[in-house]
Amino acid sequence: MIALEKLYDRIIQRTNINLRELKFDVSPQIEGLIPLRQLTKFYAFYGISPNHPIDFQFRHSNLSGSYFLGKCKVTNSLLYKSDIRGDELKKEGDSFRFGNFIIPINGDESMDIQNSLLVKTLVHNFSHDPETPDIFYIRDTVSLHFANIHGSPSRGCFLEPFSTVDLTTMKDCVIGAYSYVQAGEISRLNIKPGTVWVRVPDNFNFMYQFPSEQLKEYIQFNKGENPKGLFMDFVNARKGDFQRVFETVNKEQTVVVPDSASLDRYAVTKSENHINENVLVSQRAFLQNVWLGKGANAQENSIIINSRLERYNVTAHGAKIIEADLGEKVFVGFNSFLRGQPNEKSNSRLTVGKGSIIMPHTIIDIDEQLKIPDDTLVWGLIRNKKELEQNSVSITEFEKVDSGYSKGDMVFEGNGANFVAAFRDRINHILEANGAFFDGKKNRGHAQKNQNMSFNTIQPYPEGDLEGLYPTIIIQP
Amino acid sequence: MIALEKLYDRIIQRTNINLRELKFDVSPQIEGLIPLRQLTKFYAFYGISPNHPIDFQFRHSNLSGSYFLGKCKVTNSLLYKSDIRGDELKKEGDSFRFGNFIIPINGDESMDIQNSLLVKTLVHNFSHDPETPDIFYIRDTVSLHFANIHGSPSRGCFLEPFSTVDLTTMKDCVIGAYSYVQAGEISRLNIKPGTVWVRVPDNFNFMYQFPSEQLKEYIQFNKGENPKGLFMDFVNARKGDFQRVFETVNKEQTVVVPDSASLDRYAVTKSENHINENVLVSQRAFLQNVWLGKGANAQENSIIINSRLERYNVTAHGAKIIEADLGEKVFVGFNSFLRGQPNEKSNSRLTVGKGSIIMPHTIIDIDEQLKIPDDTLVWGLIRNKKELEQNSVSITEFEKVDSGYSKGDMVFEGNGANFVAAFRDRINHILEANGAFFDGKKNRGHAQKNQNMSFNTIQPYPEGDLEGLYPTIIIQP
Repeated sequence: MIALEKLYDRIIQRTNINLRELKFDVSPQIEGLIPLRQLTKFYAFYGISPNHPIDFQFRHSNLSGSYFLGKCKVTNSLLYKSDIRGDELKKEGDSFRFGNFIIPINGDESMDIQNSLLVKTLVHNFSHDPETPDIFYIRDTVSLHFANIHGSPSRGCFLEPFSTVDLTTMKDCVIGAYSYVQAGEISRLNIKPGTVWVRVPDNFNFMYQFPSEQLKEYIQFNKGENPKGLFMDFVNARKGDFQRVFETVNKEQTVVVPDSASLDRYAVTKSENHINENVLVSQRAFLQNVWLGKGANAQENSIIINSRLERYNVTAHGAKIIEADLGEKVFVGFNSFLRGQPNEKSNSRLTVGKGSIIMPHTIIDIDEQLKIPDDTLVWGLIRNKKELEQNSVSITEFEKVDSGYSKGDMVFEGNGANFVAAFRDRINHILEANGAFFDGKKNRGHAQKNQNMSFNTIQPYPEGDLEGLYPTIIIQP
Repeated sequence: MIALEKLYDRIIQRTNINLRELKFDVSPQIEGLIPLRQLTKFYAFYGISPNHPIDFQFRHSNLSGSYFLGKCKVTNSLLYKSDIRGDELKKEGDSFRFGNFIIPINGDESMDIQNSLLVKTLVHNFSHDPETPDIFYIRDTVSLHFANIHGSPSRGCFLEPFSTVDLTTMKDCVIGAYSYVQAGEISRLNIKPGTVWVRVPDNFNFMYQFPSEQLKEYIQFNKGENPKGLFMDFVNARKGDFQRVFETVNKEQTVVVPDSASLDRYAVTKSENHINENVLVSQRAFLQNVWLGKGANAQENSIIINSRLERYNVTAHGAKIIEADLGEKVFVGFNSFLRGQPNEKSNSRLTVGKGSIIMPHTIIDIDEQLKIPDDTLVWGLIRNKKELEQNSVSITEFEKVDSGYSKGDMVFEGNGANFVAAFRDRINHILEANGAFFDGKKNRGHAQKNQNMSFNTIQPYPEGDLEGLYPTIIIQP
């Protein structure tokens, strides 16, 4: 364990150096939170398929129970239950649009994760940084339970539990628990917990702040303590189910999966589930008594229970949907938590009308029936009809906003139509990339490409100074 | 599968070229015997421990459910359920004795297996070839079910089922089913089935030939047919038990294993087993109701049932022991088959006295009680007292032989004492290397070093032209 402890200390030190101007000390925050002893017991997984450019380099590093796909390079990093998905990396000859610039890509995009400490973290997609479109890097970043880093370079950052940084270029930031930041280039900011911030400079700016007392019921993070609250309890209650899935080599699949759909071998399925064409169910997704319409997708760490999702639904990374019926093309953003109650109990299921956008990091937690109309934009904390009224707006109405809008604790500046268009584009891209529009020939996406995956399972040194560290592993075509 | 089929054809072709002077055509021999479709479903394992120099190179190759330990390099090879153990490779600074030569080793010994096709095969130990003491190579060798290549270079050979080539430098040979050859440098020989041949040029020469009709009951191999007979039935009956062991990621160990002993995670244990100090139970060994005394070892592919083995017993690769009681320091050689009957049934257990040497490829298959006296040398086919009389000799008596000796179908030339000394040395080396003499500090061997092993589990491409082939994998410290 000696080498592993040294590695851990070095990462913390480097992150602290990066965060010095924020006067932030990482050590007491995560003291005792990273079970180094546990890390030695994990397995790492590396997906092999003919559809992804494999190039896995792995030097004197650490990394635990995980899932890598596509190119990768990891050096001296301490990851933990991380999903590093490289299946959307740009290829040589592609071009990348940023504002009015079209940037040609001169070589296959690579990943490069150095000295990072990522805990239970998903890193996905491709670099959205116009300065490094061909390299997807993360340096000395400490990110806690169920934080998402989606699509972009970060560097010396500290992410609290259930936070998300999206499409973004961050540098030396502290992101509070359950905060969602999609704000372009930001640097040396300390974002307080429960902030939902979506910004495109010179275009629009959306800001919502969760009421801090109420948020604590769901997620609370105190220095050096394990995160607490309903989110953690909810996830922890399903740990055993995942353990069983990871402990079996050849999993018997009891769910019927159409040829054009894919159900990941490391997803959990319980009770009866129905999977239609072009559906994508990703690794570490959890389905229990779920009906998924054509092209719907349940992404990594999503949990869906007793629900029906019509076609082209997107359940983003870490979103939870319980006792709910969702119409066509509903988008449920990252780490959202949507919970109705069983009909039998109180007739208080949640219904979401077609075309609605549930913003990332939205909490809908009801014990009376709630119906969200078609084409509604929804955000924040909603526990009843009154709060729905305060935290939602008809998309048609919002598209008419041309300079500013405010409702409840939400403040919006800029052009509503642009904001909606940006979301719609994104949703469309997700559906397309995930293979929702596959017609038997064209528009193949992850649902078709990820069907039949091999996994290399990698273990660390079992004892000695190197205990818990992995040997160098280079995997190439 | 296209690339896999091409690879297969190329190996066969190269082996045929090597065997041209023997006028031997490999193709019809193994037509349909290698289930290429099956190969795509296997996993490969590579053991990681701080006690073995890892250097696993693996280029556009194939290889299936297996176990690699120590340095290795595999190129364009088609292995299958192979155990390639590199845990006794010579290290820089070692020296290697050959006859009166002492050859210094100037660099760590490496392995190099190219274009080989090895089926259900164990390759072990280190190079005994004085011409290449620092490289353990095997080139275009086709070896069938449960054949052992032990300790040495081979090249363009064809090994029939259950054959063993031991400590030897072979070149372009055909080795018949259940033949055992330990004969130093041989080249372009066609060894008929059931030959047991132990030779050290200018020293001694031991030769026994199994009666071919009786041997067929146990093992029979006809061109292009799956091997038949009791050996295959016996092994196949235990396939399901092994499948369960390979399909579980974290195996729960129910057997009590002392600190100084090791029970491999890929061994099968059934009923009650008792394991004493310094015991080594290797991968793919099978124990059912067995008592193993201090320092005893059950090597790869050995099957031991309802038996008691006193201390310092060696059960070599592929040996089977059923309903038997073995005294101290009994050696049971490769692929031997020793079967008594349950006491309750007919009072006909097998007893082997201490210090006895059961030569490799010995069949003892009784339905009347049989007691082999202490310090007996035993070979050949023995089904009753009369055949024991013909196929054994007291070691003390045999040590007096100074130029020649013959008994039953066995012919011996040379010095008996030298022959016995060579065997005793070998047994001692095996016990030592396996850690049988560990005293808590000194004499650590495999039993102590292999206790706590990590495994990398490697899968091939799941589809496309490369289906069934593995990507390049390089594993280094």
